[in-house]
Amino acid sequence: MREVSIVGIGMIPVRKQYEKSLREMGAQVIRIAMEDAGIDKVDSLIVGNMLSDELQGQKHIATLIADEAGLIGIEALQVRAATATGAAALRMAYLSVASGDADTAIALGVEQMSIGQPTPALAKALDAKYEVAVGANLISRNADLMRLYINKYGMPENGLANFAINAHANAMHNSNALFHKEMTRESVMNSKIIHPPIRLMDCSPICDGAAAVILAPTDEARAYTSQPVHILASSVATDRFRVEDRVDPLMLAGARLSAIRASRRANVNREDVSLFEVHDAFSIMACLLLESIGYARRGEGWRLAEEKRIFQGGDIPIATMGGLKARGHPIGATALYQTCEIVLQLTERAGKNQIADPKIGLLQSVGGAASTVLTHIFGV
Amino acid sequence: MREVSIVGIGMIPVRKQYEKSLREMGAQVIRIAMEDAGIDKVDSLIVGNMLSDELQGQKHIATLIADEAGLIGIEALQVRAATATGAAALRMAYLSVASGDADTAIALGVEQMSIGQPTPALAKALDAKYEVAVGANLISRNADLMRLYINKYGMPENGLANFAINAHANAMHNSNALFHKEMTRESVMNSKIIHPPIRLMDCSPICDGAAAVILAPTDEARAYTSQPVHILASSVATDRFRVEDRVDPLMLAGARLSAIRASRRANVNREDVSLFEVHDAFSIMACLLLESIGYARRGEGWRLAEEKRIFQGGDIPIATMGGLKARGHPIGATALYQTCEIVLQLTERAGKNQIADPKIGLLQSVGGAASTVLTHIFGV
Repeated sequence: MREVSIVGIGMIPVRKQYEKSLREMGAQVIRIAMEDAGIDKVDSLIVGNMLSDELQGQKHIATLIADEAGLIGIEALQVRAATATGAAALRMAYLSVASGDADTAIALGVEQMSIGQPTPALAKALDAKYEVAVGANLISRNADLMRLYINKYGMPENGLANFAINAHANAMHNSNALFHKEMTRESVMNSKIIHPPIRLMDCSPICDGAAAVILAPTDEARAYTSQPVHILASSVATDRFRVEDRVDPLMLAGARLSAIRASRRANVNREDVSLFEVHDAFSIMACLLLESIGYARRGEGWRLAEEKRIFQGGDIPIATMGGLKARGHPIGATALYQTCEIVLQLTERAGKNQIADPKIGLLQSVGGAASTVLTHIFGV
Repeated sequence: MREVSIVGIGMIPVRKQYEKSLREMGAQVIRIAMEDAGIDKVDSLIVGNMLSDELQGQKHIATLIADEAGLIGIEALQVRAATATGAAALRMAYLSVASGDADTAIALGVEQMSIGQPTPALAKALDAKYEVAVGANLISRNADLMRLYINKYGMPENGLANFAINAHANAMHNSNALFHKEMTRESVMNSKIIHPPIRLMDCSPICDGAAAVILAPTDEARAYTSQPVHILASSVATDRFRVEDRVDPLMLAGARLSAIRASRRANVNREDVSLFEVHDAFSIMACLLLESIGYARRGEGWRLAEEKRIFQGGDIPIATMGGLKARGHPIGATALYQTCEIVLQLTERAGKNQIADPKIGLLQSVGGAASTVLTHIFGV
């Protein structure tokens, strides 16, 4: 397998009600990333998008965006894994270069959710017959997990507040973030209950965004940039689709297995990780991921947050540029934003959010109720 | 790049109103293919499906089907390229094994279109803003191309009839085909005009189906089967998205470019090809593909059909098991049916449809109005 590195990145600010169309957002980010890599052509474009079928009436968007970007003739395909879709695009672009099939590939994530009705479309990440038909959606499923967690471990009602506080604090200095507003324990706990016990401040927002990375073989990477970032591992694992079919619903087996596979491939231990871009679509999900891959003991993920060990300067900083909670979670684009942010951290360009002496970045992306989880590990 | 071979195949009959659900169809075909390859586990499942978002309310089907098939923990991702989606799944599974990331991969195509309203969902293969909003759909776009062709080359009204006649003749002996009814020149020309000048017998049907192939490294293939089929090349090329933006709308530049790339990779010439599984979703598309990749001169693709050179025993047999027209075109599954059929031909298991002394099989898959085209070349 050929080693693969990131040689260019592109982002536009996450916003609500973007003035541009989906295809324009995608094409703009492609241009930014290609300029960053200093290239004017590319072999392959892999697009991550979850909701354009319903919200834009488009089922052929990879080629539509390639055309808009003026990249006629190249490969263009779309890949999906529900809410982990951006990571799936990164993975397919990675395999394309790793195999030797492409010498340069763009992984683009793009989503425009703040028009139309995103909630019913998002719920299709669940089982239409056995979950959606009985009223479940992604919020209710995460609420189920949070209730179970509270009942099992006796976590106090405000036990997860620091996840939002950390994310919002980090977003303050990220110009691409949707929110630039500090949160306090009071403002989190005073936020509206959306679906008990989940509060508004436990949820990532509906928003629009696009981000991309350019991949090339590692041994050619310095021809494109002086600061390449090496993709040390890419992996996927699935779990039982429905939470109720799992032996231990609070152990995310897909996250655990995917992390084990990636760690082996990268030859990286848990302690080697400098920052963890976690899938904090809901605070409880971030907490369960930290436990499932071993950063906290079972039932103690929330204490990691309470003790501020997830904050900048802590032993496992998460959501270092605002996370899904405060940078925003434009689904198909999210993992590409996270990848760009890890690149900024590892190349020491993260400004006021810069963590000290970064070596290894970890990314996990969760599809649905964690039935599909992708893990990527990056290094310099 | 590691060489990749097909070591198992699985199909269920194409039908209307399948009695099983989409997930059950997918799981059944996975079991058939795994049994054919003699394996009980697999690293990766790549699923091709175009319409489940609208028709089944599912946007996370790869993992849903993995769960239904009892394959917990494996990789499961979905890949798309509009109406060429099945070929995109084959390609991603190919890259997965070619890269060394997976040692075994399933490419599964599955579609259940004969429920609900498939036509508006299918039209999303076009541009929502500039095509669908002004009334275009896939039938009207193909009718435009056929009208242009007739006007430019003076083809007689019945010039394409042999495409349907050949497809239906070949489907007679394929138990997986939807139609088992011979067509004559009269029955084709008496069929209803759907969208002038396109008649019902120029169109592939709405139907349900699922097909899969198992891929493994070529140098391990004989551990799985005595009759592996080598994937000599996999390629994709795009064209301008909309027909009206193309300099020469009757030259399918994506098909041509994709075929050139695949031929170079496989080191195979046009004359080496024993059979061509063409994307005959509409007769005019089959005709234009034959011209665009050089089997006929411009304006003479229909003569290839009139002279029966596309029939069994002809110099370029197409749709040898019934094609999209008569075996059926369950979108996301189609290219996987075609791949299975090429495997049957190349391993001399095609029964009454067996072509003589087969060496090389060619597959082309068309997304939308040929804005995305995938080419695969197979050999023994």
